[in-house]
Amino acid sequence: MSATTAHSLTHDAALRRRARAVIPGGMFGHQNAASLPASFPQYLARGDGCHIWDADGNGYIDFMCSYGPIVLGHRHPAVDAAAARQQALADCQNGPSERMVELAELLVDTVDHADWALFAKNGTDATTICVTVARSGTGRKKVLVAKGAYHGAAPWCTPNPRGTTDADRAHLITYEYNDLASVEAAVAEAGDDLAAIVASPFRHDARFDQELVDPEFAVGLRRVCDTYDAALILDDVRCGFRLSLAGSWAPLGVQPDLSAWSKAIANGYALGAVLGNDRFRDGAKRIFVTGSFWFAAVSMAAAVATIETLREVDAVAIMTAAGQRLRDGLAAQAAAHGLAVNQTGPVQMPFLTFAGDEAFAMANVFTGEAATRGVYLHPWHNWFLSAAHTADDVDAALLVTDDAFAAVRRQFG
Amino acid sequence: MSATTAHSLTHDAALRRRARAVIPGGMFGHQNAASLPASFPQYLARGDGCHIWDADGNGYIDFMCSYGPIVLGHRHPAVDAAAARQQALADCQNGPSERMVELAELLVDTVDHADWALFAKNGTDATTICVTVARSGTGRKKVLVAKGAYHGAAPWCTPNPRGTTDADRAHLITYEYNDLASVEAAVAEAGDDLAAIVASPFRHDARFDQELVDPEFAVGLRRVCDTYDAALILDDVRCGFRLSLAGSWAPLGVQPDLSAWSKAIANGYALGAVLGNDRFRDGAKRIFVTGSFWFAAVSMAAAVATIETLREVDAVAIMTAAGQRLRDGLAAQAAAHGLAVNQTGPVQMPFLTFAGDEAFAMANVFTGEAATRGVYLHPWHNWFLSAAHTADDVDAALLVTDDAFAAVRRQFG
Repeated sequence: MSATTAHSLTHDAALRRRARAVIPGGMFGHQNAASLPASFPQYLARGDGCHIWDADGNGYIDFMCSYGPIVLGHRHPAVDAAAARQQALADCQNGPSERMVELAELLVDTVDHADWALFAKNGTDATTICVTVARSGTGRKKVLVAKGAYHGAAPWCTPNPRGTTDADRAHLITYEYNDLASVEAAVAEAGDDLAAIVASPFRHDARFDQELVDPEFAVGLRRVCDTYDAALILDDVRCGFRLSLAGSWAPLGVQPDLSAWSKAIANGYALGAVLGNDRFRDGAKRIFVTGSFWFAAVSMAAAVATIETLREVDAVAIMTAAGQRLRDGLAAQAAAHGLAVNQTGPVQMPFLTFAGDEAFAMANVFTGEAATRGVYLHPWHNWFLSAAHTADDVDAALLVTDDAFAAVRRQFG
Repeated sequence: MSATTAHSLTHDAALRRRARAVIPGGMFGHQNAASLPASFPQYLARGDGCHIWDADGNGYIDFMCSYGPIVLGHRHPAVDAAAARQQALADCQNGPSERMVELAELLVDTVDHADWALFAKNGTDATTICVTVARSGTGRKKVLVAKGAYHGAAPWCTPNPRGTTDADRAHLITYEYNDLASVEAAVAEAGDDLAAIVASPFRHDARFDQELVDPEFAVGLRRVCDTYDAALILDDVRCGFRLSLAGSWAPLGVQPDLSAWSKAIANGYALGAVLGNDRFRDGAKRIFVTGSFWFAAVSMAAAVATIETLREVDAVAIMTAAGQRLRDGLAAQAAAHGLAVNQTGPVQMPFLTFAGDEAFAMANVFTGEAATRGVYLHPWHNWFLSAAHTADDVDAALLVTDDAFAAVRRQFG
């Protein structure tokens, strides 16, 4: 494995050329590979468990899991079978199917704080609806969000405000994650108009080392929301079902009023969900949100199968074991190569940076060399484990990362 | 067919009871059956062509087509086969599949004004992105929308503003559809800050008779946008691929700069698209919009198969013929029963109201009786034809509507 394997991206290059004619900039959004090292493919062709193949047939052990959705592995048999059974009956109709009731009941049974559920298609739909329900329920406007946090790509939250207006964020006030004093200051600014505080389960802003939540901060947010009668919104879109099936702050004993879900909820089938408690049921009842495909049955059948499988196999434990094995292996390798690295975040959602590597030059070499050798990581976005990652898969990936660390060492001395 | 068939909704009622516990208000959005006559089911179980079955096994000839998405008929074999072939490879991965390039090329080839495409999941995503691209491309903020028009359910456009703030619509100015003088007044109000004018292909606001576009109005909007260097945005989410495959205003010779698509684009698979011309390519390149499932391959494979089939079978002609047969039949029946009705909009997207029936009391009896007898219409939202509707299906539906008209006549004298 130490020699660079042949890694042709000829077909990928041809597709990129064709795309430049018919897609602005050649690609858009978070899956635009233009900012990744050149050895990353833009186009993917096939997935199976934790293995993926690009349009040229190159295979990779996948540590991005489609940026989160794939929590049980690509094309999980039980999930795909449930989806296919539903597809053979109906998907998008004039009304929902029985699957919606089953899924809402299962979510209420699974996630501690949830008394009810609403469904949508995007994570951004879910975070936006949470804010709307909070405003509806409180009759107030101001919403606190952590500086630099990602809560979606609608005009009120996209990290690149080009094409949006100041009015889209007129009632947002920012605070610093894990800093209760900054929250108190933001609350004071909101005055008697505080509708909600939005928080991620931990700080997972792209391009930064991840930062776990200080349990006292989470408890403090709950207390502030109780004091001011505002909604605590947990954005569980990225972390949901990887840290705890009961909700990502359930292990801390902190219950949000509203939570946003998407990504992993149906193992890759398009679905978003908002979960809420009885305090905000009436606020939710009085808003109007909808979408042409929000009632479609296939993704809900997939979600039921996903959540049942996550429970049955104890997926969080599997991901924790695989993630810990990866973290330990990477730490030992980096030390052996004399490289100072930071590994941050929960092991199920790992991230590695090199000390002092602000421009991600070392990260680009590391992940670029790993991609060439068949391991799909990311230079500046957190990675994801799935329940399909075995100890053997992690060990196979570590053979590759050892070579990738060696390449970094050679290049950066 | 003149006697009311047994139409039990026992299982539906049980599902509604269960849902009330775990879904706010029991259901949400445009598919909430609470405002429909009691003989409409909330839950649907199966579809095939233009036939659907509810959770109790009652069958209906479907004239709503899932509020638009089903343009070739439920579970169309060619579309479902293309989707299944893609699903067996991969759906949601770390990047798009080759299908995205194929679909973008096919759309650019099919829709007259389009030089490029972006993809999303909801119609609301598509309209919101159109506005964002227009603002990005022009560097201006003001957007004109027709009073009462539906362009989605995000905070800036939802018809029920509960939970939104005035700031969400701070830069919108309204005009009256088909009234160029009102457009000129709105343009004057926008001053030098006009980014875009948004229009639907015709006026299809729910709860109102539909109104076709005055061709001079469409031409006038194009002229105004050219004069003020603003974007003309055509919201083709509801009409797209039912009036013309080339875009709904192509037959008028009026080309928008940007158009929003969703519903029928993939025959029920969840997909949204923005199409644009070269003038707005750079504006599109510079925004950041994305979603976890926006790059997923299955719905794109379904869209390619849908558009190819629409072309092959000349679906617009089929829908026009079936829709005309329905309209002619309903007109004759209403006259025979001595009932004054208004049938409005293109025949592929029909709508019927009773003269003077502002509260939809007669419409509720008419559609409620039709539902009991196995025809799924809607009292206050436009209907949809599909390419699966044959003359025999329409004739079978007309047997039922004759009885429904008779019931209206009996009840309202």
